[in-house]
Amino acid sequence: MSQLRRNIVTGEWVIIAQERKGRPYHFGKQKHEEKCPFCPGSEEMTPGETLRISDGEDWILRVVPNKFPAVCIENESVDDRDLFYSLCEGTGRHEIVIETPLHDKTLHHLGKEQIFKVFTAYRERFVQLSKLQDIQYVQIFKNCGKNGGASLPHSHSQIVALPFIPPRLRQEMEGAKRYYDQKGQCVFCEMIRAEVNSQDRLIYQNGHFIVAAAFAPQFAYEAVFLPTLHQQDFGQVEDRVLYALADAFENTMQMMEKILGEFPYNLVLHTVPYGMEEDAYHWHLELMPRVSYHAGFEMATGTFLNSVSPEEAAKRIRGF
Amino acid sequence: MSQLRRNIVTGEWVIIAQERKGRPYHFGKQKHEEKCPFCPGSEEMTPGETLRISDGEDWILRVVPNKFPAVCIENESVDDRDLFYSLCEGTGRHEIVIETPLHDKTLHHLGKEQIFKVFTAYRERFVQLSKLQDIQYVQIFKNCGKNGGASLPHSHSQIVALPFIPPRLRQEMEGAKRYYDQKGQCVFCEMIRAEVNSQDRLIYQNGHFIVAAAFAPQFAYEAVFLPTLHQQDFGQVEDRVLYALADAFENTMQMMEKILGEFPYNLVLHTVPYGMEEDAYHWHLELMPRVSYHAGFEMATGTFLNSVSPEEAAKRIRGF
Repeated sequence: MSQLRRNIVTGEWVIIAQERKGRPYHFGKQKHEEKCPFCPGSEEMTPGETLRISDGEDWILRVVPNKFPAVCIENESVDDRDLFYSLCEGTGRHEIVIETPLHDKTLHHLGKEQIFKVFTAYRERFVQLSKLQDIQYVQIFKNCGKNGGASLPHSHSQIVALPFIPPRLRQEMEGAKRYYDQKGQCVFCEMIRAEVNSQDRLIYQNGHFIVAAAFAPQFAYEAVFLPTLHQQDFGQVEDRVLYALADAFENTMQMMEKILGEFPYNLVLHTVPYGMEEDAYHWHLELMPRVSYHAGFEMATGTFLNSVSPEEAAKRIRGF
Repeated sequence: MSQLRRNIVTGEWVIIAQERKGRPYHFGKQKHEEKCPFCPGSEEMTPGETLRISDGEDWILRVVPNKFPAVCIENESVDDRDLFYSLCEGTGRHEIVIETPLHDKTLHHLGKEQIFKVFTAYRERFVQLSKLQDIQYVQIFKNCGKNGGASLPHSHSQIVALPFIPPRLRQEMEGAKRYYDQKGQCVFCEMIRAEVNSQDRLIYQNGHFIVAAAFAPQFAYEAVFLPTLHQQDFGQVEDRVLYALADAFENTMQMMEKILGEFPYNLVLHTVPYGMEEDAYHWHLELMPRVSYHAGFEMATGTFLNSVSPEEAAKRIRGF
């Protein structure tokens, strides 16, 4: 059972998902000490697939329901005797994208074709999960490495279909709307122009994407993947754009690995909810390397402290 | 030089403090490999004291300016050619409370008298720093342990005097005001009543404080220290209340250590800015053990995922 609880002072919601305590944790364990549930031959360890991509013979990508979900399909009814606080059921879906049958390869070393397939799987499940009843938003993200919050090293992403629009997305959509109402322009399109003009924070560029170090980063080396084509809805994105994203991701990550080594990170996708008309918004991905920490200052103030400027980060990543 | 930069989409500010890269990092190093700047005999390694408490002969607590500040007293003027984005100077003060001359003792093992002295040092510097020109808020917090974001193991706290009211505090003050306007009661006073009534999340209680597991925690085992006396301004708090806080802190931390072992944490103090009349608010401390991680889901959505319910956390900490 999972529960949504509201902070009575700030209005923020948190999810209490006690089932997740049972999930396996394989970092720091000997290889093969425990069987990896995402490897070929372990298919019976996961619930039934919601998507499978194969090379004709074997699978090369699987999407499966998470056995230890943050939100559940069904919930017991909530005990609301405690009337001072607010809580409700946390219903939704939680899926895992097993990005490769290979246990030891990270996403950016799988080759452009496979990375592209991962992104098409995101799009396919984004669209399908968005159509379910009571689902307001489908959040796609990836945790890589122990400090990135991953519990298993085998390369995977996560998709959580939620019964609400997350506050972070709402905040971004409102900000973009405000900018659009004031200036008559998409703030992300303007950002692309500013980054290409100044070059100071630019990391990589191809026909459909720019990658730039974030101007106001929450984490050291934080970067944003911005599609140059103005589109709000990830569900509508064409294959050629996803292919360019695969190229941008592969190149950026390999450049970053050269200076940071194998680094933990979170990758998050922001889009309008599937089918929503909100022309002021512009879908994108945010990459947050977890080589710096959020600590007391961030928790206390809600303001982030960063000791690497994005201009210096971009310079180091580019190598000039 | 430190800089405040605004996220053009969300409006959030971040602080870029490049000097902080130079700060010493002693976790994982051999003992005595590098001299601890907070130990007796290293006094010349820190800038001059802003507060010293001694036992008549030697110091037992020092407050010194941080050599690697998040915000600086003076800044170069900011280059604002880049007009698309917003930035400004990050002026303020950043001090360190060296809580004890003992290198190896954590705060909750120093004894009630010394813990009380640390809290009186907080109050003293809160008041003095608040009186400086251009200072809007003085944030007190403590990072303990490597995963708590500390860079030195010698027990210390931090005090940052800021040229703005932090968004997190603003959010709490607005929430408290909204509740007060609707119900005519302080939301924190009501919370104390609800927690004492239900007992489900109650961890510790004395004449002036209750400690409860947070109803909607961002982190597993998160707890809140609530003074039972309704006061908004930490600068006005009396010694007897601070002594009761020392008692509550010592007992709660030792109870938590029994089940979590030596655990990393952040402790943050929330109060109205010194001298502000805001009767709807109620000062308090929040304790965030860092035994769970924020990862892609939290970054992407702004909603927190927690696999330990506060009721279970309180039960485990209480031991019944």
